[in-house]
Amino acid sequence: MIEVGIVGGTGYTGAELLRLFADHPRARVRLLTSRQEAGRDVAEVFPQLRGRVDLKFSVPDPGALAQCQAVFFATPHGTAMQMAPELLKRGVKVIDLSADFRLKDVATFTRWYRMDHACPDWLEKAVYGLPEMERKSIVGAQLVAAPGCYPTSVQLALLPLLEAGVIDAGAIIADCKSGVSGAGRELKATSLFCEAAESVRAYGVDGHRHQPEIEQGLARAAGKPVGLTFVPHLMPMNRGILATVYATLTKDIDAQALFDKRYRGEPFVEVMPPGSSPETRSVRGANHCRLAVHRRGNRLIVLSAIDNLVKGASGQALQCFNLMHGLPETAGLTQTALWP
Amino acid sequence: MIEVGIVGGTGYTGAELLRLFADHPRARVRLLTSRQEAGRDVAEVFPQLRGRVDLKFSVPDPGALAQCQAVFFATPHGTAMQMAPELLKRGVKVIDLSADFRLKDVATFTRWYRMDHACPDWLEKAVYGLPEMERKSIVGAQLVAAPGCYPTSVQLALLPLLEAGVIDAGAIIADCKSGVSGAGRELKATSLFCEAAESVRAYGVDGHRHQPEIEQGLARAAGKPVGLTFVPHLMPMNRGILATVYATLTKDIDAQALFDKRYRGEPFVEVMPPGSSPETRSVRGANHCRLAVHRRGNRLIVLSAIDNLVKGASGQALQCFNLMHGLPETAGLTQTALWP
Amino acid sequence: MIEVGIVGGTGYTGAELLRLFADHPRARVRLLTSRQEAGRDVAEVFPQLRGRVDLKFSVPDPGALAQCQAVFFATPHGTAMQMAPELLKRGVKVIDLSADFRLKDVATFTRWYRMDHACPDWLEKAVYGLPEMERKSIVGAQLVAAPGCYPTSVQLALLPLLEAGVIDAGAIIADCKSGVSGAGRELKATSLFCEAAESVRAYGVDGHRHQPEIEQGLARAAGKPVGLTFVPHLMPMNRGILATVYATLTKDIDAQALFDKRYRGEPFVEVMPPGSSPETRSVRGANHCRLAVHRRGNRLIVLSAIDNLVKGASGQALQCFNLMHGLPETAGLTQTALWP
Amino acid sequence: MIEVGIVGGTGYTGAELLRLFADHPRARVRLLTSRQEAGRDVAEVFPQLRGRVDLKFSVPDPGALAQCQAVFFATPHGTAMQMAPELLKRGVKVIDLSADFRLKDVATFTRWYRMDHACPDWLEKAVYGLPEMERKSIVGAQLVAAPGCYPTSVQLALLPLLEAGVIDAGAIIADCKSGVSGAGRELKATSLFCEAAESVRAYGVDGHRHQPEIEQGLARAAGKPVGLTFVPHLMPMNRGILATVYATLTKDIDAQALFDKRYRGEPFVEVMPPGSSPETRSVRGANHCRLAVHRRGNRLIVLSAIDNLVKGASGQALQCFNLMHGLPETAGLTQTALWP
Repeated sequence: MIEVGIVGGTGYTGAELLRLFADHPRARVRLLTSRQEAGRDVAEVFPQLRGRVDLKFSVPDPGALAQCQAVFFATPHGTAMQMAPELLKRGVKVIDLSADFRLKDVATFTRWYRMDHACPDWLEKAVYGLPEMERKSIVGAQLVAAPGCYPTSVQLALLPLLEAGVIDAGAIIADCKSGVSGAGRELKATSLFCEAAESVRAYGVDGHRHQPEIEQGLARAAGKPVGLTFVPHLMPMNRGILATVYATLTKDIDAQALFDKRYRGEPFVEVMPPGSSPETRSVRGANHCRLAVHRRGNRLIVLSAIDNLVKGASGQALQCFNLMHGLPETAGLTQTALWP
Repeated sequence: MIEVGIVGGTGYTGAELLRLFADHPRARVRLLTSRQEAGRDVAEVFPQLRGRVDLKFSVPDPGALAQCQAVFFATPHGTAMQMAPELLKRGVKVIDLSADFRLKDVATFTRWYRMDHACPDWLEKAVYGLPEMERKSIVGAQLVAAPGCYPTSVQLALLPLLEAGVIDAGAIIADCKSGVSGAGRELKATSLFCEAAESVRAYGVDGHRHQPEIEQGLARAAGKPVGLTFVPHLMPMNRGILATVYATLTKDIDAQALFDKRYRGEPFVEVMPPGSSPETRSVRGANHCRLAVHRRGNRLIVLSAIDNLVKGASGQALQCFNLMHGLPETAGLTQTALWP
Repeated sequence: MIEVGIVGGTGYTGAELLRLFADHPRARVRLLTSRQEAGRDVAEVFPQLRGRVDLKFSVPDPGALAQCQAVFFATPHGTAMQMAPELLKRGVKVIDLSADFRLKDVATFTRWYRMDHACPDWLEKAVYGLPEMERKSIVGAQLVAAPGCYPTSVQLALLPLLEAGVIDAGAIIADCKSGVSGAGRELKATSLFCEAAESVRAYGVDGHRHQPEIEQGLARAAGKPVGLTFVPHLMPMNRGILATVYATLTKDIDAQALFDKRYRGEPFVEVMPPGSSPETRSVRGANHCRLAVHRRGNRLIVLSAIDNLVKGASGQALQCFNLMHGLPETAGLTQTALWP
Repeated sequence: MIEVGIVGGTGYTGAELLRLFADHPRARVRLLTSRQEAGRDVAEVFPQLRGRVDLKFSVPDPGALAQCQAVFFATPHGTAMQMAPELLKRGVKVIDLSADFRLKDVATFTRWYRMDHACPDWLEKAVYGLPEMERKSIVGAQLVAAPGCYPTSVQLALLPLLEAGVIDAGAIIADCKSGVSGAGRELKATSLFCEAAESVRAYGVDGHRHQPEIEQGLARAAGKPVGLTFVPHLMPMNRGILATVYATLTKDIDAQALFDKRYRGEPFVEVMPPGSSPETRSVRGANHCRLAVHRRGNRLIVLSAIDNLVKGASGQALQCFNLMHGLPETAGLTQTALWP
């Protein structure tokens, strides 16, 4: 069994890693850290894991973490870049679920996250953990930056089109709808039940941190900068992202065939039949992205549904972990969506 | 007191009319029809109205309805066009909440609603009941077609821009999010709690009946045909629509000022301060539309929030009724939004 | 117009008072305090009130408050008992929505709220603001302690039975289900959307602060101490309480008739027809309590539905205010329930 | 691989069986019937199963079903008793998720389900599929009647107490809260989103079909008839039941120890530590029942949480299937709860 450490395991992505590893045939969580919950049983903090995970939270300790073969960071932005270099130096593989290693450009990182970067050299070496785009690099990586939830849903919706150069890359719109767990478990007013239930709203309309991350990925696929209007919305539900992506065709192609071909063989991308409209619940708890392509004249509408905590966070991180360790890519990720 | 009849009062818009008229200072519901519930007390069918509305449902009877000064149709499409002409002939004012009199072009009606129109002559005379666009005509109208919920939210978001001719009218996108009550009270699988809760999905991506209605209104404001991509989405909530509308500026104008000016004095349109993001719950149960305008370069994003059952249906119908009868436009419509 | 002050207006009960007073024909809010939001417009803090309430929050100032005829405290426990005595001395009428003046026994207050009482003398003079039980005393009161939400729903379910002495007062069970707004707007983990949605749980099973308040009221109605098992549960919804109360008949009476008689003429208690099962949504936004009585052998089941923020808090406080000022009891409280 | 048939696979329990069997190491679904969906791919009817289940619905055919080793009935009441006898005669094992074989008394069945029983002889031979009560009989059974969802939650809460004879068996109260999926996928008004969301209500207060089933099981555990007041409530959520069970101790025992001992070694019953309050989401998607015992004087409060579609239906049926086929009891049932 490959032994794994998780730093910062008390949020939703940490809990989700624990859920997924509980079913993993070839790896197990050996160390789980949280300053706040140090000393407490996982079963006490997460009653849903009682009988499934038998671990105690401990204070993060580099020496102990270095004895794991891989360490996941499920921490707020700014922590991984402080702790990861020491672990990397000792040969540990690191998968970071925060934003610390996603952006290649230090200045962009500093502008959006309002902090200096603690290890710009590792920024260069970090591999962006979207297997459908970077599979080969992930296989050989020591440090993987797991993508954000919005970026995953939007990039998967656009990769085939940008790689093929068939849309106007300067006029893309991504109208995204996310469940509340995307905001994390932090105590903030907008995440209260009574502030989010029975209501819908846009947020970050004048700028959201996932914008530069999406643009970086899209530009790479397009081979040139892209023009993206990205507007996230908060939905009254726990899990799920639906990205509705609008693009304009510049060539008269068969978009369905393009998507089918691009994602053939991908274990976690499901191109739905023509006319489909994937619901977020059809991927609830599963690591799949479901895509549907619609065309009206030269307007393309791509619908992209993921579970923000699985394919949008912990599941994708685990998928990268599998690739980094030569395991079957789907190990521990065969859950069927929970419906209804 | 002005005496009012409601045909088909067992759905959500019918119940909402009853709620609003219960607070109306100058009008009261005298007759309420439903074939299915004929003979039953309103309080039995709608326990929430016990003690507020003291009426029995009756079988629809043209003679009895003709004794009302105004009749609302809260019926499925196809009913009002059968029953209204007789009432109109007898001098009754009619406000139709269904789609029967919204589209000016008979062929368009037939194509989208898959039925012949029973009284094309009245189609011409019907006034489209969006007071912010057609106030003067509504005042003198005998037959008003109350707009659909999506059309209300989208048209109010775009009128100032199209009237001023400052956007590319050929490339408008309206990504709309609606609560489930927009689908009515009909028994269909997609309206079941377990099919709609904890999930989000697009629908009607390849064509929705509100598309021609929106296009007709926008074209009128623009003075030319428009190109609209309209994608409705179902949200896990009871009430509310948020329209996120994307347009491209063709002139460098102050959009906030344009909206402020266009809607100054409008009792039910609230242009929010710059940087706002209206939540649907901020208009829950109220007849208001809250608009916010955001600009990124030459891209405009207009957010438009209404309660689909109030400003998107029964409240707007009542607003028209007030105008048609020389009453204060806000009579019976002063409810404050229910929050949370 | 009677001029009113509200201390602590940024929580759900404060916002609800503002909503209700916006429709009040004979009173208006003149002063609204919040240390945290002092200087900000109400419309900025509560966008749903934009256009309805034109006020700024101010720092609480006894001198300014003393110029109001009545002051409501919508503050956390412990504040009203500090500030109210000064206002009362100056002749201001005070309605406290917190627990400071509800319990008659100082020791009980101290045990459950873990603080000394700042003005035990006023504790004696305070009138418990449940009009259906204390109407006459409220009319002449200067200080009213508005009841808690659970206590309102449970006491109204039991008053007829205990006053008539027809049930075993020593073996009452109240299984209560509340929406999340009952927990207030405080930032705590259990109030987060992702902790409360799609789940149900009991809480306070080994003791809840509303227990002594309920027992005090029931004992007064019974003329002797009662034995109550009270278990509150958290429901995934914004508003509403349903109390399911189980009691054992000791006399063979017609319970429906007893309830009908006891509450005849009560403007805000609706005894439903036999066989009914009131939904919480049937009172959403309204000041009504809907009661239904079911009997199986000598077992009575009483169902009691209120909106916890209206009849369970701000609406009831306003009802008391009306009584204290000789206004019609229903002034400002005629809203019809919002459904769905 | 053991080959399995499912009759009536288009409802929630059918879909849940498909989800669970997709992960089963030793059995697979070979035949899936539905008159309505015959000929369609599972992936078309249940998009969430695309890529996980590769089957077509077929018309129910006794000959084809008889070639399966086991057949599950996920049908409305009345179907299994018509079709099962033929299969049983041919040696097929049958697990019925409907009520057809749950009640031992034919007259009781007829009274509550308003139909004659088609094979009363099999009624006698059927084993009640609650493994914690009937494990040995299930192992040798050919026909198992999987318990209802409410009965599972209530019986597990009471078995230790009734078997030990330590409570007043004549005065038990079970106040149960269920998600909407408990009502099935049938099109009925009360299951609509807008009728169930943001509201709570009791139903079946004057009699619910699960009452005789619960009483039958409790009487068997107690060795005598019991007196049960059972009131089910509908919660605005998809999945989950919380039973709050009230009983009166007749002996001064350590209830926590009693529960710990009774359920030691049970793979799917988790007795929580003292002071716990299990949330339904802590078992969402999992086959576990979480129990907590609270005592106030001689009053016991037992909290029992299950997922109504798993331990309350399909999971329990699969647990019985495993026992009937000599498989590990937990095969295919090791899913961790989905949280949040």
